[in-house]
Amino acid sequence: MYKLVQINGGVCASDGFFADGISAGLKANAALDMAFIYSEALCEVASVFTTNKMFAAPIKHFRAKGEFQTNFILINSKNANAMTGKAGVTDIDEVLATIPNVTNPLMSSTGVIGVRLPKKKIIAGAKLFDFTKREPQNAAKAIMTTDTFSKQMAFKVELADGTYFHIGAMAKGAGMINPAMATMLCFITTDANATASQMQEILDAVTVTTFNAASVDGDTSTNDTVLLLSNKKSAAFDKEAFKEALHNIMHFLALEMVRDGEGATKLVTYKVTGARDDKEAEVVAKALSNSLLVKTALFGEDPNWGRIASTVGASGAEAYEETLSIHFNDLCVYDKGELLFNAAMEDKAAAVMKLAKFDISCDLGIADGKFEAYGCDLGYEYVKVNADYRT
Amino acid sequence: MYKLVQINGGVCASDGFFADGISAGLKANAALDMAFIYSEALCEVASVFTTNKMFAAPIKHFRAKGEFQTNFILINSKNANAMTGKAGVTDIDEVLATIPNVTNPLMSSTGVIGVRLPKKKIIAGAKLFDFTKREPQNAAKAIMTTDTFSKQMAFKVELADGTYFHIGAMAKGAGMINPAMATMLCFITTDANATASQMQEILDAVTVTTFNAASVDGDTSTNDTVLLLSNKKSAAFDKEAFKEALHNIMHFLALEMVRDGEGATKLVTYKVTGARDDKEAEVVAKALSNSLLVKTALFGEDPNWGRIASTVGASGAEAYEETLSIHFNDLCVYDKGELLFNAAMEDKAAAVMKLAKFDISCDLGIADGKFEAYGCDLGYEYVKVNADYRT
Repeated sequence: MYKLVQINGGVCASDGFFADGISAGLKANAALDMAFIYSEALCEVASVFTTNKMFAAPIKHFRAKGEFQTNFILINSKNANAMTGKAGVTDIDEVLATIPNVTNPLMSSTGVIGVRLPKKKIIAGAKLFDFTKREPQNAAKAIMTTDTFSKQMAFKVELADGTYFHIGAMAKGAGMINPAMATMLCFITTDANATASQMQEILDAVTVTTFNAASVDGDTSTNDTVLLLSNKKSAAFDKEAFKEALHNIMHFLALEMVRDGEGATKLVTYKVTGARDDKEAEVVAKALSNSLLVKTALFGEDPNWGRIASTVGASGAEAYEETLSIHFNDLCVYDKGELLFNAAMEDKAAAVMKLAKFDISCDLGIADGKFEAYGCDLGYEYVKVNADYRT
Repeated sequence: MYKLVQINGGVCASDGFFADGISAGLKANAALDMAFIYSEALCEVASVFTTNKMFAAPIKHFRAKGEFQTNFILINSKNANAMTGKAGVTDIDEVLATIPNVTNPLMSSTGVIGVRLPKKKIIAGAKLFDFTKREPQNAAKAIMTTDTFSKQMAFKVELADGTYFHIGAMAKGAGMINPAMATMLCFITTDANATASQMQEILDAVTVTTFNAASVDGDTSTNDTVLLLSNKKSAAFDKEAFKEALHNIMHFLALEMVRDGEGATKLVTYKVTGARDDKEAEVVAKALSNSLLVKTALFGEDPNWGRIASTVGASGAEAYEETLSIHFNDLCVYDKGELLFNAAMEDKAAAVMKLAKFDISCDLGIADGKFEAYGCDLGYEYVKVNADYRT
């Protein structure tokens, strides 16, 4: 028995963690653009990175370390430090060498690809860091790119024996959010007494149904990163409780990212059931969340269930017109070969489409495979944001 | 030795073929919305259909026939006759039974999914058909949906011995154009002395590098159809000449479809070389032509080569930052780990992006695999066209 209590504080909700955001002049108008996370005690680290083969310099820098403990992460927005070759990695070493009193410091970046880090600005900015600050909201704002709101969540986890630990997180998303991870950065801190290998196992499992089930546009970035740090300030740990808390945090942040997808006005959960197996259900759910025709129909609030059926058929998974059924929330719009759609139903379906959040469920009627994926609509604003991202 | 002479006439360029388009009131404003192709002599048939498992009623109707010869195709726009179950097929039989003097008649449809055929209108419309008409332009217009221009091409193929044959085609495309075929219909006639099996072999080979290399939005429709009919009015045939003429026609029509992609303003050829093998080159080329981030950058005329690199890395194909090079036409913007981009080059690259047609070339620097794919940009107009397609 354990109890999850949602609390404030983001990455500073865990004992012994400090964080803040500052302006280094990377963004215009003195907006916050650099953040740090600092821990008094050294932390064990679990991680998930992008599957993109052009993974960015901060990921190379991390992977070169082998086993290590750290107490510091520097995060910048506006520059991804990707496609910058060996120089990208030495740039990180140069920047991090200027930070006093840190051990095995890490760096994480998001922004434009293919431009060297503005080292001078970043080194000058880092001099403003104050490791006694607990300003998680500033940190969460500083890591934003095209995000329109910051994303944080934290829990106090109370165990049956009266002990407890904390787990808190911040994330950024918005563009390039994709089933194979996203241009998303997520930093999670905990004071639980959890080792790197314990955390890694749980993190890998939770990623599948949270960040890897969320899609904005089907593109996978060079910089996707999830870092989970434990400083073991608390003696408490319980695997199931930790997993549930981590799942709740990552599920919430994944949906927040989709809801804040560039130009998104709707958050849709694609519930696929009855597939040949879970893998095929995942293929179908992700095909739906990534289909341009489905996404534009959502934007137009057009209950075009034919595009849903067509996308199921095009996904590559086993599927039959005669066994498929489709629901918009509880409204059945197509049932195993039966055309149910008429003017009255069209009105009801259109009413569902006007909601900010709803489910589209597809039962393939074959076996027991199931998967849920999360997607958004695609409208003019997505085009606007992405037509000239660099300027 | 042979010679290809481009001629007018579309599907009527081949001897003994007739075609016309009429208005049956399916589209508004008395626009042309039904077409026929008729041959005096019975034709052998080769075909390629969608890979979508929810394939439409006309494809079920065709596949139920086994081996056959035909002299007639009825084509309607505005209604796809897809997801209409067994009734969709009997609707076709009912419609075709009203057409006099045809043998094994075929039907082909494009438009909205999940609505029964408007049989009365279609049967009344078919009574307007006049099998002595040669109005290929009317036929090509009648099969359009969101296309903004009609698409036709034809050749006279002159062989070394003085004999000759013709091959002519019309197509429609616009939305749901995709590497695994498209919502595209293409009808090709020839008077060459070619059997169904000879034509099928050539058609399958040519499809890979033409229609299956073209993408507008990565969605694969329920209705994609290519039909190739030979009435053998000419005694002439030469396999190589036929293949080259068919390739030229299908390549031209594929590019016309991409150029006329919904809201498209640019036609981009993605030339991928140096991949581990041709299959991996195809994966990369199609990933580029389908990437939303690449497509919106094209629309914004933003020479964002970092998104190209990121998409290559995300494609799943073997790729390395240190061996990749990227060109916009002849301009090298990234060379095997070297960041070449500066303000002067940015101006040059931006000038390429302003062209209506250009190449983006990626050499992966691994082995000899290569593939070319064709794509377009994605702008506000695509969203507009697709946000409420059905109204």
